[in-house]
Amino acid sequence: MRSIVILATAACLFLTARGDAAAAPVVSNFKLANGLEVVVISDHRTPVVTHMVWYRVGAADEEPGHSGLAHFLEHLMFKGTEKNPAGRFSQVIGTVGGQENAFTSSDYTGYYQRISKEKLKMLMEFESDRMTGLVLTDDVVKPELNVVLEEQNMRVANNPGARLGEQMDAALYLNHPYGKPVIGWRHEIEKLDRAGALAFYRRFYTPNNAILVVAGDVTADEVKKLANETYGKVKRVAEVAPRKRPQEPEPTAARTVTLADPRVVQPSLQRSYLVPSSSTAKAGESEALEVLSQILGHGSNSRLYKAIVIDKGLAVSAGAWYQGTSLDDTKFGVNGVPKPNVTLPQVEDAIDAVIAEVIDKGVTADELDLAKTRLVADTVFAQDNQATLARWYGASLTTGSTVADVQSWADRVGKVTADTVRDVARQYLDKRRSVTGYLIKQITRAEDKRS
Amino acid sequence: MRSIVILATAACLFLTARGDAAAAPVVSNFKLANGLEVVVISDHRTPVVTHMVWYRVGAADEEPGHSGLAHFLEHLMFKGTEKNPAGRFSQVIGTVGGQENAFTSSDYTGYYQRISKEKLKMLMEFESDRMTGLVLTDDVVKPELNVVLEEQNMRVANNPGARLGEQMDAALYLNHPYGKPVIGWRHEIEKLDRAGALAFYRRFYTPNNAILVVAGDVTADEVKKLANETYGKVKRVAEVAPRKRPQEPEPTAARTVTLADPRVVQPSLQRSYLVPSSSTAKAGESEALEVLSQILGHGSNSRLYKAIVIDKGLAVSAGAWYQGTSLDDTKFGVNGVPKPNVTLPQVEDAIDAVIAEVIDKGVTADELDLAKTRLVADTVFAQDNQATLARWYGASLTTGSTVADVQSWADRVGKVTADTVRDVARQYLDKRRSVTGYLIKQITRAEDKRS
Repeated sequence: MRSIVILATAACLFLTARGDAAAAPVVSNFKLANGLEVVVISDHRTPVVTHMVWYRVGAADEEPGHSGLAHFLEHLMFKGTEKNPAGRFSQVIGTVGGQENAFTSSDYTGYYQRISKEKLKMLMEFESDRMTGLVLTDDVVKPELNVVLEEQNMRVANNPGARLGEQMDAALYLNHPYGKPVIGWRHEIEKLDRAGALAFYRRFYTPNNAILVVAGDVTADEVKKLANETYGKVKRVAEVAPRKRPQEPEPTAARTVTLADPRVVQPSLQRSYLVPSSSTAKAGESEALEVLSQILGHGSNSRLYKAIVIDKGLAVSAGAWYQGTSLDDTKFGVNGVPKPNVTLPQVEDAIDAVIAEVIDKGVTADELDLAKTRLVADTVFAQDNQATLARWYGASLTTGSTVADVQSWADRVGKVTADTVRDVARQYLDKRRSVTGYLIKQITRAEDKRS
Repeated sequence: MRSIVILATAACLFLTARGDAAAAPVVSNFKLANGLEVVVISDHRTPVVTHMVWYRVGAADEEPGHSGLAHFLEHLMFKGTEKNPAGRFSQVIGTVGGQENAFTSSDYTGYYQRISKEKLKMLMEFESDRMTGLVLTDDVVKPELNVVLEEQNMRVANNPGARLGEQMDAALYLNHPYGKPVIGWRHEIEKLDRAGALAFYRRFYTPNNAILVVAGDVTADEVKKLANETYGKVKRVAEVAPRKRPQEPEPTAARTVTLADPRVVQPSLQRSYLVPSSSTAKAGESEALEVLSQILGHGSNSRLYKAIVIDKGLAVSAGAWYQGTSLDDTKFGVNGVPKPNVTLPQVEDAIDAVIAEVIDKGVTADELDLAKTRLVADTVFAQDNQATLARWYGASLTTGSTVADVQSWADRVGKVTADTVRDVARQYLDKRRSVTGYLIKQITRAEDKRS
């Protein structure tokens, strides 16, 4: 079982999809009687299917003091059911040459397999069985907790960049649970247990809180039949309340976080701004933020790269990103890595100047066209990849968007104007909404202090 | 009704008590059958009594998304019961020349009256009646919410220093609810309602979650009799769970918060470090932090004042404080206000140098003696003031300390050594544990951005 913690980034989805443009796939969407939502993306070019179950639950749905529970449960979902003891599901997938994975974010938890078409029903039997049939004993829970602690150790505790990211999220989100790390705070992971995991499972893992996405060489009718024969037999075990998390107060004060670590080889600078997501934005704002991130910081023609890396020669890299796929208010980021003998404040001043120019003077028609063309092309490229498309739908549907929203995305991006890009920059790239993170090599005095 | 939001600071308690030393008062402590804890502090010099009821509930006990509820309920406690309609209690106190007040912190909520001795029983009848008898209708709840919003407006929204404090707390506490403002986030206060307040009341306002403190011209036997006749009739309405709040991860990254506001006349610098409280510290640590705060920043002989205000002439003021009275990990603070034409970084560097010197070389025997003498003298002076003593006991007993802890405090301070002071400075005055706040006048560019 491989398990990863990810954050949904629309940009990331698109960028992984490179290839020839393909005809738009046919997407169907329906619900089973037990409330399970189903999305079928038919693509008959190769006899394989991508099968994903997404639950509308993530780290931001955990109770205070129990951070890491959503991710821990993701691990425990591989521990077997009455019908299928631990390991059998993964073993069978391996035997037939399939792949599997699972992932947890603040907003969702998902289970993924890629398998040859004729094994789909078998797969659906396994996956539907563990939707409500998980059996957990202390014998399996306790060792798995050590696996998760080791994962935290490897991915975060021993990774200064990841630790800085954790601290920045906590300083950006003053009230919303997005401030908590998805993997959990270590001292809280250590206290997770079987009873807590089971209670969380019973509360959130129920067909009416899940979305099945099947992409590949199948038709909607085939999937509907198979889904009814498998998932259709799973009873609702809980009614699920609306996902109302504590929201952020209006941001009022610029923050910084400095993480010094002896292992840092390359100092760097990150900044996150609190901005609307595709689900919380006013019409057009999220699309404009997406375009802004392209113009500001995507690729070597972007404003940041040209100004800081090429023209001023201050940095080895500089960029921007926007994490639009999010149930609640999300992040817009900029970053820079200074060249040797250049300081972080020099790079930060240069980044600030680039942002100030966009705020003051807006963007050009050429920049706008290029960004929109590239974003729309990315969605076309995405259609060439089963898993990418499946993931786009799953992430969207678990963060407040609809199938129609996904399908209208390219059109909506097409309508972004230079004025709306300048307006979102002006409104949201305000330092008071931001946390700036500095990753630096630990200096001697701090090392002395630790001893 | 006057209502204030306070944070318990032991230092603050002592400093308000100035006068001639008095004989140690006799303190008695017992419980009624319904679980109400009672502390009686006999002091027969004047025929008045200070009467306080403290509830073991504060802002840190609120559910996420409902910040401000503890404080809002404090306001609503003046809205009357079946027996005593709104206003009668306060009116009677006023008629007999008494005083009253109420306060909410992260850890406790308290109700205070000072009245002539012979009115004590009447007072206890009123206060015990509203312990579980509160009647709330939308007619009184809705207007009171506007009162609280106006209070937030006046105390925080229009007070740049208070806003900076709120932001600093939120950036210091990454996981613990001490990061939330006691008065609440405005957008959450706006949604507080009658049903939520009543549920909170029923959960936490019960004799087994309260402490009655009576100080003044009474004996323990008198109070016991009166308490049984009044509070003794109040039934337990809830069992109260242990107060286990989400705890902080080990701090790893220095943070800053910059609040710029056009109304700032005098820029200033604050820093808070996350440190143990009297309840979470290892033996001797909290007392050493108290002594450290004296040596570092209390009065014009302190290290910070001498170095920064007198010797270097950089600041008009500089100081330090420690908020020891706290159920969970708490804050140690330093601050400085630059002279005109001196920058905040200059003052910060000077503060850092003073702290580094204490960490490197420790404190002198003279400094230690002076600090201890002053702290012990403060506790003696405190005994001269009924309300100060009552408040000390109440705050201690609602934050995890006992009557014995309060009584042994001076002895424990007496045992602090120069080594333990240096050790706590070394361990806890580490920037990675801290948030530094800068209050600055808003500059033109930021003003432009807002328009």
